[in-house]
Amino acid sequence: MIAHFSENIGNEKALAIAEDLKAFMFKEGDKYVVITSSSMKELPQEYKSLATETFVFDTDMQLSARSYLNRTRTVKIGDVEIGGNSNNTIVIAGPCSVESEPQIQQSSALLKSLNLTTLRGGCYKPRTSPYSFQGLGLEGLKLLKKMKEEHGLTIITEVRDATHVDEVIEYSDVIQIGAKSMYDHGILKACAKTTKPVLIKRGFGTTLQEFVQCAEFILSGGNPNVILCERGIRTFETKTRFTLDLCGVSYLKEYTNLPVVLDPSHAMGHAYGVPDLTRACVAMGVDGLLIEVHPDPSVAKSDASQQLDHPSFEKLLDSLQPIAAAVGRKIV
Amino acid sequence: MIAHFSENIGNEKALAIAEDLKAFMFKEGDKYVVITSSSMKELPQEYKSLATETFVFDTDMQLSARSYLNRTRTVKIGDVEIGGNSNNTIVIAGPCSVESEPQIQQSSALLKSLNLTTLRGGCYKPRTSPYSFQGLGLEGLKLLKKMKEEHGLTIITEVRDATHVDEVIEYSDVIQIGAKSMYDHGILKACAKTTKPVLIKRGFGTTLQEFVQCAEFILSGGNPNVILCERGIRTFETKTRFTLDLCGVSYLKEYTNLPVVLDPSHAMGHAYGVPDLTRACVAMGVDGLLIEVHPDPSVAKSDASQQLDHPSFEKLLDSLQPIAAAVGRKIV
Amino acid sequence: MIAHFSENIGNEKALAIAEDLKAFMFKEGDKYVVITSSSMKELPQEYKSLATETFVFDTDMQLSARSYLNRTRTVKIGDVEIGGNSNNTIVIAGPCSVESEPQIQQSSALLKSLNLTTLRGGCYKPRTSPYSFQGLGLEGLKLLKKMKEEHGLTIITEVRDATHVDEVIEYSDVIQIGAKSMYDHGILKACAKTTKPVLIKRGFGTTLQEFVQCAEFILSGGNPNVILCERGIRTFETKTRFTLDLCGVSYLKEYTNLPVVLDPSHAMGHAYGVPDLTRACVAMGVDGLLIEVHPDPSVAKSDASQQLDHPSFEKLLDSLQPIAAAVGRKIV
Amino acid sequence: MIAHFSENIGNEKALAIAEDLKAFMFKEGDKYVVITSSSMKELPQEYKSLATETFVFDTDMQLSARSYLNRTRTVKIGDVEIGGNSNNTIVIAGPCSVESEPQIQQSSALLKSLNLTTLRGGCYKPRTSPYSFQGLGLEGLKLLKKMKEEHGLTIITEVRDATHVDEVIEYSDVIQIGAKSMYDHGILKACAKTTKPVLIKRGFGTTLQEFVQCAEFILSGGNPNVILCERGIRTFETKTRFTLDLCGVSYLKEYTNLPVVLDPSHAMGHAYGVPDLTRACVAMGVDGLLIEVHPDPSVAKSDASQQLDHPSFEKLLDSLQPIAAAVGRKIV
Repeated sequence: MIAHFSENIGNEKALAIAEDLKAFMFKEGDKYVVITSSSMKELPQEYKSLATETFVFDTDMQLSARSYLNRTRTVKIGDVEIGGNSNNTIVIAGPCSVESEPQIQQSSALLKSLNLTTLRGGCYKPRTSPYSFQGLGLEGLKLLKKMKEEHGLTIITEVRDATHVDEVIEYSDVIQIGAKSMYDHGILKACAKTTKPVLIKRGFGTTLQEFVQCAEFILSGGNPNVILCERGIRTFETKTRFTLDLCGVSYLKEYTNLPVVLDPSHAMGHAYGVPDLTRACVAMGVDGLLIEVHPDPSVAKSDASQQLDHPSFEKLLDSLQPIAAAVGRKIV
Repeated sequence: MIAHFSENIGNEKALAIAEDLKAFMFKEGDKYVVITSSSMKELPQEYKSLATETFVFDTDMQLSARSYLNRTRTVKIGDVEIGGNSNNTIVIAGPCSVESEPQIQQSSALLKSLNLTTLRGGCYKPRTSPYSFQGLGLEGLKLLKKMKEEHGLTIITEVRDATHVDEVIEYSDVIQIGAKSMYDHGILKACAKTTKPVLIKRGFGTTLQEFVQCAEFILSGGNPNVILCERGIRTFETKTRFTLDLCGVSYLKEYTNLPVVLDPSHAMGHAYGVPDLTRACVAMGVDGLLIEVHPDPSVAKSDASQQLDHPSFEKLLDSLQPIAAAVGRKIV
Repeated sequence: MIAHFSENIGNEKALAIAEDLKAFMFKEGDKYVVITSSSMKELPQEYKSLATETFVFDTDMQLSARSYLNRTRTVKIGDVEIGGNSNNTIVIAGPCSVESEPQIQQSSALLKSLNLTTLRGGCYKPRTSPYSFQGLGLEGLKLLKKMKEEHGLTIITEVRDATHVDEVIEYSDVIQIGAKSMYDHGILKACAKTTKPVLIKRGFGTTLQEFVQCAEFILSGGNPNVILCERGIRTFETKTRFTLDLCGVSYLKEYTNLPVVLDPSHAMGHAYGVPDLTRACVAMGVDGLLIEVHPDPSVAKSDASQQLDHPSFEKLLDSLQPIAAAVGRKIV
Repeated sequence: MIAHFSENIGNEKALAIAEDLKAFMFKEGDKYVVITSSSMKELPQEYKSLATETFVFDTDMQLSARSYLNRTRTVKIGDVEIGGNSNNTIVIAGPCSVESEPQIQQSSALLKSLNLTTLRGGCYKPRTSPYSFQGLGLEGLKLLKKMKEEHGLTIITEVRDATHVDEVIEYSDVIQIGAKSMYDHGILKACAKTTKPVLIKRGFGTTLQEFVQCAEFILSGGNPNVILCERGIRTFETKTRFTLDLCGVSYLKEYTNLPVVLDPSHAMGHAYGVPDLTRACVAMGVDGLLIEVHPDPSVAKSDASQQLDHPSFEKLLDSLQPIAAAVGRKIV
């Protein structure tokens, strides 16, 4: 359950209550928020009169639930707001991996020319084989930082495991937790302690319930800036890389208060399908998109088949605004 | 492989070739079309000079392949064309089950008032329990026929098994083969002999390859009027009834020449998600939609949770035209 | 719910009750059994005093439930009993398809030499492509009948669709409903009217709940001789053809009263894994096995990769008896 | 590809070759082993004459492949050998979580009384909710160490994320990488540097190919002591917690050289099915079993429903030896 207490009780008392209830606690505005397991349905008598408001839940989807907060939370990505009353659908783009300075400069130039603000690019690649390209690591982070400084771009990049989570938090504006890392407590706990926005990708074998509960690890630490990203689940179908779960997106929009971003590139796995799927995502009324685009996909060191080339991406971007307008949204 | 022969060789000769090659044969326009297993890569010497054109394939997706016919086939649903150069996205609507004359009259009135042409409604319900409502059977077919006669509506209804396939072919304008029946050779062979349009729903455990091969059963019998319908596949996710496979739709659009219709109602299983998903489907640029709508979903005898009520459906329909326009399509 | 009534109420009264409750009814021994939807939790007042016993259920798994009948039902396959107190694990073997008389004679000779009693062989193959071998049809049924007459073998063969269900019921001793046909009401209803044993294969996309409910279609018609067959479900893993669901088998043994037979050949799809899997099935304590074996798998017209050759099958059979003994069972 | 070089070339040269080929290198016995990406099919001319043996592969399953090493590798778990020529099937047992000293003492006493050698118990639990019991952490590791010292038990425990991998490597005899952590490069790389045995659990959404490639991360670092553990995959079936993939186990036995251990407890998720499944696993001829057993499952802090109580476990263990004997194996 979630209980609110007035700031008047003081930090020490709030901490004591939380400890007594084996609960999480953080201060938000003028109140203390205490979160216990959802199996607790009533506060102990001694705390009842102290609490200003309480919320009970069937499952451990608590801080993320619409039954707790009946609107989409606002999260800022650089200067751009998503969620809340913004009606923005942000387009985040860039290559699968940061490969070299010339490559990432080309990507940055593309974004600037299209008035996009946010650059993606992987430095720690969660490859499934030790014999594949594993990313540039810290060198890549430094290149992204350079793009931020030179072009004013907002940077989002992926943390692969807890050994470099501090570096990623330091160098990026938005921390991306990858599909294969989303159960990683080391990462989740580090992200709970920052206030930078965190984009969590749904694991390809992860239920919606588990996915949202990952967000609870971060929210319960006091970081409210969590974004959910659906990027395709693994099913029996193998003609496409994964299966983009738009039914699941409907569920997330109905039952959670977190902004939702979609990644059609990884779901499809083939560039030919990305434009149609991206348009479908926009029509769903989501808060953002992650699109892989590469100056020359044929020589990309990872995910070559699914990255759009620059002309295809420009053409796609042109087609999104009227769809967004039709559903009361704006592409930014 | 597919081989074309001029009509000059005569029907008897065409039949003899087909028999010799254990192949299917039909006449189309001024040519005979002979289709063997895809394992055949070359015609026997004696037939080589007779053939006007030949096509080889890696798999048994042959007549349905874009590498055979590089455009979407045109299929007529009543007076409405889909596929081809039509750019039409047809909205087919109606209740899950035909339950009574008053109910289906209300559904018909709704369609007429919205200038829609095609009414869906199940008479033979493929329920998974013998203790559930099984549909009105022939009595339902007669009610649908009445709607056609009184209101000029085009009728689509589902065949459940081979025992009543002839009745469904007789009473309906478009034959729907359900997700649980799509491997039924008795049904497929009967549909191959008519020229009425056939809409095949993808089984929820069926690969895209198997799905398209079901269409080959009908196409190879000489009925070119086949429509593919994606309606959600079964995955590990249970918050929604099924998972609508839009990645798969991208594949079908890229590699097959058959019109594609989507059924977001069955995929989602909950009315709250149907509007967003329907808009996503329209933005994909598909040829049609199947939407479940009921005068009073709360008393529906099947699929109560996923049917829209009439006001919600009207509101949804209003929102589709601008999205369709944005992708160069027209809602009809 | 299920209600028992004494035979003293007479057939007419039993029928009237069933009609009034929209229920199924059959006579079993000295009682009438009436089965309504599981949503009914109490009999109407007027029938309460007439009923000798009533059973309520959470779901439509009713006649098949252990909470109704707390033992495995006995089913006779030829002269061999399975289920009940028999402790028998029957090995049913034969080729995927009946291909010719010499082939099926060799298969029959193999079974006779190993003291096995029951021959499997498909005549109506549910192929997913129209361009593959579709089975010998009625000609195959006649060959199987001949094996029965010449060698005293019990025959099990598959019905593919309702167009030939009567023939299969006539020619075979056990009717097999295939994984792709198990939702086919035409077949299920025909099987409900005979008293021959019916083996239902679980669809590869079918939940255990739906699977058991298919059995209810037959049981509720008064045919108690239903056998459940797990043969692999479709998952994301593609190195093997399907995934044999032995966890599901544990569930079926715990919650249903129907004998369970396993088909490791179709699950694995590769002969190399069949012996280990078969031994695992025996150790589970199941009531039977369906194994594909072919005189020369390399030339088989269907499922060539998964059929054992005769020497491998003999060697496998030898290894089963000690495992069966270890779990209190006997291979027959 | 894998290339072997004689130790005569010296460490410096071996390193230089590996660096030139962007390859992994380690010394094994009297040879240097160099492993490149499987996309390399031939050594550069300059190294050809130096290599004593080379192996090419279709995929990145290389060091783990039977086509490289055509026998099961031997791994020592304490004093017990598995794999190789041992024919041992080791039974590893213990509670899901280490909860307290009295609890783990009872578990240890059970193992000792049954002549089992290896104790499992989780200290860092990869829970999917922040509001559940997360394990005792380092305190738990110390309790396990105490059991080792007092009772001579071999200890296996799970690492959850890279923040505590060094502690787990220090305190345990066998490092377990959990299903949710198996893609964690931080963990995999740390395990590649030790020579302690590492048991990798297959992710529930992980293909066999990806699973085996995780082992390659460790093998390519020079640690040959890797054990594969199948513990159930996530499918559409929800009556059981997961689906134990024994078809996949057949594949692993056929194509890899690594010992295979099975975890029926997590797959089933319900104690009632664990005995039958465990017997099936033994009949498969696997190298080991992980069974969850708790002094009082009803009060367990995690996985209460799937843990066996002590009497049930003893009874199960008794039943395994004859099955093991039937397949030429010994329970240890």
